[in-house]
Amino acid sequence: MVIFIDDILMIYNEYIHSDRFEFEAGGELDGLKVAYHTSPFKYDPSEGKKVIWICHALTANSDAEDWWPELVGPGRLFDTEKYFVVCANMLGSPYGSSGPLQMGAGHYLDFPKVTVRDIVRANDLVRRHLGIGRVDLLVGGSIGGFQALEWSVSCPDLFEEVIFIACGAVETPWLAASIESQRMALEADANFRKQISPEAPYMGLRCARSIALISYRSYDGYNLTQEEKDEDFLFSQRAGSYQRYQGKKLSDRFDAYSYYYLGLSVDSHNVGRGRGGVEKALSGIKAHTTVVGIDSDALFPVCEQKRIAAAIPGAGYYEITSRFGHDGFLLEYEQLTEIIGPLLENEV
Amino acid sequence: MVIFIDDILMIYNEYIHSDRFEFEAGGELDGLKVAYHTSPFKYDPSEGKKVIWICHALTANSDAEDWWPELVGPGRLFDTEKYFVVCANMLGSPYGSSGPLQMGAGHYLDFPKVTVRDIVRANDLVRRHLGIGRVDLLVGGSIGGFQALEWSVSCPDLFEEVIFIACGAVETPWLAASIESQRMALEADANFRKQISPEAPYMGLRCARSIALISYRSYDGYNLTQEEKDEDFLFSQRAGSYQRYQGKKLSDRFDAYSYYYLGLSVDSHNVGRGRGGVEKALSGIKAHTTVVGIDSDALFPVCEQKRIAAAIPGAGYYEITSRFGHDGFLLEYEQLTEIIGPLLENEV
Repeated sequence: MVIFIDDILMIYNEYIHSDRFEFEAGGELDGLKVAYHTSPFKYDPSEGKKVIWICHALTANSDAEDWWPELVGPGRLFDTEKYFVVCANMLGSPYGSSGPLQMGAGHYLDFPKVTVRDIVRANDLVRRHLGIGRVDLLVGGSIGGFQALEWSVSCPDLFEEVIFIACGAVETPWLAASIESQRMALEADANFRKQISPEAPYMGLRCARSIALISYRSYDGYNLTQEEKDEDFLFSQRAGSYQRYQGKKLSDRFDAYSYYYLGLSVDSHNVGRGRGGVEKALSGIKAHTTVVGIDSDALFPVCEQKRIAAAIPGAGYYEITSRFGHDGFLLEYEQLTEIIGPLLENEV
Repeated sequence: MVIFIDDILMIYNEYIHSDRFEFEAGGELDGLKVAYHTSPFKYDPSEGKKVIWICHALTANSDAEDWWPELVGPGRLFDTEKYFVVCANMLGSPYGSSGPLQMGAGHYLDFPKVTVRDIVRANDLVRRHLGIGRVDLLVGGSIGGFQALEWSVSCPDLFEEVIFIACGAVETPWLAASIESQRMALEADANFRKQISPEAPYMGLRCARSIALISYRSYDGYNLTQEEKDEDFLFSQRAGSYQRYQGKKLSDRFDAYSYYYLGLSVDSHNVGRGRGGVEKALSGIKAHTTVVGIDSDALFPVCEQKRIAAAIPGAGYYEITSRFGHDGFLLEYEQLTEIIGPLLENEV
């Protein structure tokens, strides 16, 4: 007889930094907080369990099991029972880490600007706090990939395997144009400028999400899934309703100020900064590197991942097929498992 | 000795409709006005001059010589001395034709919704008014192409040559998602909802333009022209500044309400409506048809123009090369001249 028991889920924790945290772009904070999830047991290096660190994407959170359910959890690729799996919440995000909301009404925008490097330094504080001396596998997609890249460059001796999915080494002008449009949407909402409450500027946030969504999906993806059902339509309805639905879905769980700060962090992404350029910075990565591109990704076309792979000594490049565009990094779990699985097979 | 004289420019006129104009989506208007430009002489069919009708794109106007300077004017491809060249301003536009601004403060959004078919019917009123029984060449790019397509389908015996550039036969879901995002940007601006003045919701309009601009240019185009100048940049500046600059440039010459109505007309584009579908409608075009696609066009990828050409009996398809994406239809005048020139050579 087989007895089914509930999966033991990843557990939530908060790290409070006891020193002052200085932000790369200026400003500082006492009591910086970093929320994180880990496997449901205490990390003990003597047990020899592999450490897997997952970096999350823009509006996700540290509960990787929740937003990457096919890949994270007991018995899955990133097995939370077999490995010590960690995911920390990005600075600026509303899911537990320090961010603009802690400044209070009227002052949200006084929070220091956040860069990818700040986020990575905050991740690293959590790592030290947990007593992790070596990370066996670091993985991130999209802006999670920004963090993984930046961390691999800044701490080259820390990682054994690193995997960068659907990302780039530096923000492209095209992405900057999209982020700026999203920022303009937030700012066009008078409630955003007034800083009354996190909920008030929901119209600006919904529009920003709608703009972002276009870059997450492909042209073909929209045409496949959002075609009008009535061939005699007078005004199209379907794709527009979808944009509004997705906008509302985000504004029900996120806020415009956190979104604004995460947009700034995207604009800060430049692994080459102060390191003699992008290629030189990437060449310093010592971990065994796997780069994964998605053939239909319009936000980070495969040329970006090829550039990364070409600059990192010994890096492997894989391309997965998806009709979901950039969002394929969340959805094409079978192809990702096929690529990443062998990297984990070398059991301790 | 050569004497240089000033070019004689196209002249501006306004047609006022004496009957009631009924809009396709409901609503009606007395005294409908259509602004238009023509060659600087009176049309006289007995002179046998060819008639060229140009349909303009979203935020342009009837002064085709102004926005298509390399192609329209004395001695140019669309020679305003040799041919009788006409361009009418779209309904809903602020450049002279009837649109939301005529409703007065507090009531801009009471103007009837405008469809591409309404715009074409208004064009046709001007044509009748001018006494034009046959148009030798009809040309339009982008939403100008929507009009040219719709007009070719609804009045198949009116045109000799028709040219559709960088457009589609029906609004794609991807375009609808962009238009919806732009509408959400306008609506996020409280001044838009209040309908105080045409100028007040400039922040929403600037954001909408910024969103649209992303679709007008290609990924590579941005990367070629908007790369950061400082490889050590902390926060990207260049592409973002460009978006804001272009947003302001539009809000200095256009208004949010007219933009809103033109967006509705884009959402109405469906040559198949009530005609048994897109392919069936296109198959009724009798004019000799030339369809032109731009290889880097992300807004109307070449698959859209190929679809049009495939459905129209005897249509020719040409593809031009551009690094400017969709905007190539305004800029690649040499390639356009090469394709269109021979169609005009059959002199009367």
